[in-house]
Amino acid sequence: MDSKNISQAVIGRLPRYYRYLGDLKDEGVERISSSELSELMRVTASQIRQDFNNFGGFGQQGYGYNVEYLYNEIGNILGLNEAHHLIIVGAGNLGRALTNYSNYENRGFIFEGIFDADKALIGRKIGDLTVLPMEDLEDFIISRNIDIVVIAIPKTGAVSVADRAVKCGIKAIWNFAHTDLNVPEDVVVENVHLSDSLMKLSYMLTQ
Amino acid sequence: MDSKNISQAVIGRLPRYYRYLGDLKDEGVERISSSELSELMRVTASQIRQDFNNFGGFGQQGYGYNVEYLYNEIGNILGLNEAHHLIIVGAGNLGRALTNYSNYENRGFIFEGIFDADKALIGRKIGDLTVLPMEDLEDFIISRNIDIVVIAIPKTGAVSVADRAVKCGIKAIWNFAHTDLNVPEDVVVENVHLSDSLMKLSYMLTQ
Repeated sequence: MDSKNISQAVIGRLPRYYRYLGDLKDEGVERISSSELSELMRVTASQIRQDFNNFGGFGQQGYGYNVEYLYNEIGNILGLNEAHHLIIVGAGNLGRALTNYSNYENRGFIFEGIFDADKALIGRKIGDLTVLPMEDLEDFIISRNIDIVVIAIPKTGAVSVADRAVKCGIKAIWNFAHTDLNVPEDVVVENVHLSDSLMKLSYMLTQ
Repeated sequence: MDSKNISQAVIGRLPRYYRYLGDLKDEGVERISSSELSELMRVTASQIRQDFNNFGGFGQQGYGYNVEYLYNEIGNILGLNEAHHLIIVGAGNLGRALTNYSNYENRGFIFEGIFDADKALIGRKIGDLTVLPMEDLEDFIISRNIDIVVIAIPKTGAVSVADRAVKCGIKAIWNFAHTDLNVPEDVVVENVHLSDSLMKLSYMLTQ
């Protein structure tokens, strides 16, 4: 199955399918029909079938999909069958929250290091990690084969951190800074602009 | 201008315009053309004009838009001209990060309280706030006219907190729990599913 031409909208929905299927799997559900999944997820069954047809349909047979098979297949498409090695830049509350955030590790996201520019934080323990100085960034990225950099610092420092990471060959940035990063085309950036999200809520509340 | 029928896609872009215009305003820029804004934001000038036409076009004249006027107009559409009163449920790292996160207050988002089920955290200071026990939730929401509840706890407790908030008349939930909330239709939920975002990054990295 060639997933090169899948629309962003479909991709955007895959993690949600994966989340629901993971919950079903944990509850011991073995099979589910597209109409049951539709009811649970509050999307139409035809949307689900269309989405899945992008990947060959995942072999719905008889009365539904095999939950574990579907969960694993979507996981593979999402690249969760390979381990990803991450570092976090920014050891403030947000960086700490991300380090501790639920069970990333089960899904192959391994936090290898956390960095901060604040000398007072260097050497502090955050979970299993020790806060490292920014000077070590390049060496660490290269020697540990880091493939994702998480930016959890204010916008003033974010652009320069992204530049440094990209120069070391980083191809993926998870950006929490309140700014857009201008990176080369082959680098992917997933932005989590918290204020933007809060403003959308404010808009909807106002209507 | 009637903004009732504006598409979700346009609404989703408004906070980003607002962010860029705020930066321009802070830099002292008074006017900007749609082509300059286009280059800065990396969207087409025709997209910008189309988006703005949903709101009457914001009176582009001569060589461009008045930055401060446009910033204020978009802010009004986003409901940022009225104060919003928020509480956070969950005083862990994420809740703390959200409390401290940049300058919400300038945009009228006022954090009034933070709650946690963990007895050991009750009474602790987080910025200007003191962690309150969950038993106080309903009284606090009603007596302080809270209009947004931020859920920053694991998914197991999230659904019941949402139910309690909705019963007190809350119409907006900013949800960080790793689950979807089933709330009545007149309650708006803005989800920030961090794992979903990370999985999208993993997908893009895999391609």
